Amino acid sequence: MPAVEWNDQLLQLAEDLCDAARWCSTRGWVPATAGNFSFRTAAADGGRIFITASGLDKGAITPADLLEIDLDCTVLAGAGRPSAETSLHGVIYRGRADTRAIFHVHSIWNTLLSDRFAADGAVPLEGYEVLKALTGVSTHEHRELVPILENSQEYTGLSLKLTEVLRAFPNAHGVLLRKHGLYTWGESIAGARRHLEALEFLFEVEARRLMSAS
Amino acid sequence: MPAVEWNDQLLQLAEDLCDAARWCSTRGWVPATAGNFSFRTAAADGGRIFITASGLDKGAITPADLLEIDLDCTVLAGAGRPSAETSLHGVIYRGRADTRAIFHVHSIWNTLLSDRFAADGAVPLEGYEVLKALTGVSTHEHRELVPILENSQEYTGLSLKLTEVLRAFPNAHGVLLRKHGLYTWGESIAGARRHLEALEFLFEVEARRLMSAS
Amino acid sequence: MPAVEWNDQLLQLAEDLCDAARWCSTRGWVPATAGNFSFRTAAADGGRIFITASGLDKGAITPADLLEIDLDCTVLAGAGRPSAETSLHGVIYRGRADTRAIFHVHSIWNTLLSDRFAADGAVPLEGYEVLKALTGVSTHEHRELVPILENSQEYTGLSLKLTEVLRAFPNAHGVLLRKHGLYTWGESIAGARRHLEALEFLFEVEARRLMSAS
Amino acid sequence: MPAVEWNDQLLQLAEDLCDAARWCSTRGWVPATAGNFSFRTAAADGGRIFITASGLDKGAITPADLLEIDLDCTVLAGAGRPSAETSLHGVIYRGRADTRAIFHVHSIWNTLLSDRFAADGAVPLEGYEVLKALTGVSTHEHRELVPILENSQEYTGLSLKLTEVLRAFPNAHGVLLRKHGLYTWGESIAGARRHLEALEFLFEVEARRLMSAS
Repeated sequence: MPAVEWNDQLLQLAEDLCDAARWCSTRGWVPATAGNFSFRTAAADGGRIFITASGLDKGAITPADLLEIDLDCTVLAGAGRPSAETSLHGVIYRGRADTRAIFHVHSIWNTLLSDRFAADGAVPLEGYEVLKALTGVSTHEHRELVPILENSQEYTGLSLKLTEVLRAFPNAHGVLLRKHGLYTWGESIAGARRHLEALEFLFEVEARRLMSAS
Repeated sequence: MPAVEWNDQLLQLAEDLCDAARWCSTRGWVPATAGNFSFRTAAADGGRIFITASGLDKGAITPADLLEIDLDCTVLAGAGRPSAETSLHGVIYRGRADTRAIFHVHSIWNTLLSDRFAADGAVPLEGYEVLKALTGVSTHEHRELVPILENSQEYTGLSLKLTEVLRAFPNAHGVLLRKHGLYTWGESIAGARRHLEALEFLFEVEARRLMSAS
Repeated sequence: MPAVEWNDQLLQLAEDLCDAARWCSTRGWVPATAGNFSFRTAAADGGRIFITASGLDKGAITPADLLEIDLDCTVLAGAGRPSAETSLHGVIYRGRADTRAIFHVHSIWNTLLSDRFAADGAVPLEGYEVLKALTGVSTHEHRELVPILENSQEYTGLSLKLTEVLRAFPNAHGVLLRKHGLYTWGESIAGARRHLEALEFLFEVEARRLMSAS
Repeated sequence: MPAVEWNDQLLQLAEDLCDAARWCSTRGWVPATAGNFSFRTAAADGGRIFITASGLDKGAITPADLLEIDLDCTVLAGAGRPSAETSLHGVIYRGRADTRAIFHVHSIWNTLLSDRFAADGAVPLEGYEVLKALTGVSTHEHRELVPILENSQEYTGLSLKLTEVLRAFPNAHGVLLRKHGLYTWGESIAGARRHLEALEFLFEVEARRLMSAS
């Protein structure tokens, strides 16, 4: 496999992605080498995709740990093994044309809610000011549904189900895998980070509210 | 718009404000570019007001991200867009003449309590030693009421309601917006920070107490 | 008031005390300028006492913020105002002859338990391995009682009650003030820090256990 | 006792172990000098064992704080006193031949679950994606049992019971001592760290789920 050929612009994006991954590590959202992170360059720049390789501690990740892949998730350049979940990034880039970054994390609160609302098919988040951090939401009077997929190790089937869910929830800003974690995305690395932080804040508020006695 | 003309004294205040904002970010109180922060100079120095611009990550904020505004919230200098909530800072500076700094944050606990006590109109905090950190409170035998306003995206109406609430609760050290966040203030940047830290500590204690099973 | 005359040994102790105070700040145990910290030199060195001045942010404290006091809590040297709680440090140094450091902190969990067990007069901690971190405790088969005093702003009366409690609980490693905080101490600064960390760990475990639904 | 004779390879392992211990301190898992950490070199390198000495703050530990011991836990080199729990490390190295590192920590959540499931003899963790971080587990459709031993200060008897438990649970990745803490291990220092982080994440999820009201 050839090495990635970095240029200044690509390297800046790679640094921003790794910075976001290390920040997630400080929040406890990528325990035990969990999680994966990718970005895509502008269409004018070929829409190239770079993703973290499998099995690494995200708290110590650097651009050298990224693989370049195509939209079918074939590895084009870089050292290391792709994660089995790489295919889900491809599904999201194909299903959401304006996506430029995807973050996948495991948090205490998204794990808890993904199980609690599994029978409902989605976690509802409603009436919070922080919802305005989600692209296209301009008021707290909004009901965000974060759809939940059953977890699976069979990634071909899971990819199909994710494709369907993205169509069924065209306005969703994230998708949960049950007892597994959250996928969220954005029109930039900063946008994906903003979506992640907003959703995790709201998951914690909702989980604490629902899990209290009254 | 002209650039802000800093002098040493102003710049020190700006650095102190940004330091407080970055500290709030480490506490998780300004998720996803939420929150805003302002200070006002002494009357002898013209009572000039400086406030964080809209949409920035408060964990990376610097004096270059501040706007100078007047008491009617017209922008006088600086780069960037003012937040829609800038008008609420103006209401507080007009309603509390000795205010020199205002902090607005979203925390897990203030969000939860602002909803739980919405029907009562205020969160009561009573009998705690930490209440003594609030200016003018000299004993734990004190009942602090933190009034709650319904959240709204219609800021003219919200400004009027905030004006009324400040009159109705002349001794309040903070105001909550429902499912949105806290506004608190002080006679200095350090004073606002002390009020914020005391109120958030007490919100967490009260929320944990009320949300427990017994 | 004269300045403190530091020598190398004193200054090292002062640095160790300030380091402990700043560490407590990172843990959230001294919110809004709360808390106070003192050490006493060896009897051979005169048993001199140094304590943090009132009203300071403990996250930024340095030896210049310490006052030298005598056993009756009269200030002998240093800049700044003594805290009203300085007298409680004197009570502990008189009642526990081998005490060389005293820490006073406000945590979420000690505040909650000090109220929950107020009618019982003490928080019981039993059967935990971490109890062995308390001086003189060599097995987990130990029942530690942390006595609780009603909070008061009348420090002469409070000092008398603390004196009685120290006699009534000769083996206690700490005392709680209701809805206020914890006093703990040790035969060295490191010993007081070890006691503090052990008690706060156990308060959190017990509070979470008791506050759960089952 | 002679000093440890370090070579470059050994020193790197010692640094990695101390780094893991300091990281555990930042997570609050080794309160009040609790916890201990060891590594073993490859069989080709003699299978030498190095372990943290007793009574130290694990947040400030360095290679100079390590003792070299043999498989019977006799100290061969290094300054300081071995912990009473050193014998349990020997039991694990003998019972799990491929173990190259052992971590022992006290966390809020492992302490709570070790008590709650004591009558059942093990904490069950089932259906979580993070289980795949455990060596040999390749799907979330896995039920991990973390066996629980009654705590004891009588380490000869405790060692025998730990020997039995390791045989009775041949696939276990960790063992809990009731109201005391977790032992976990791995085929490398990074592997033990990954197991620790995965188990503690799952303990927190399970404890929060079980302790909630519904």
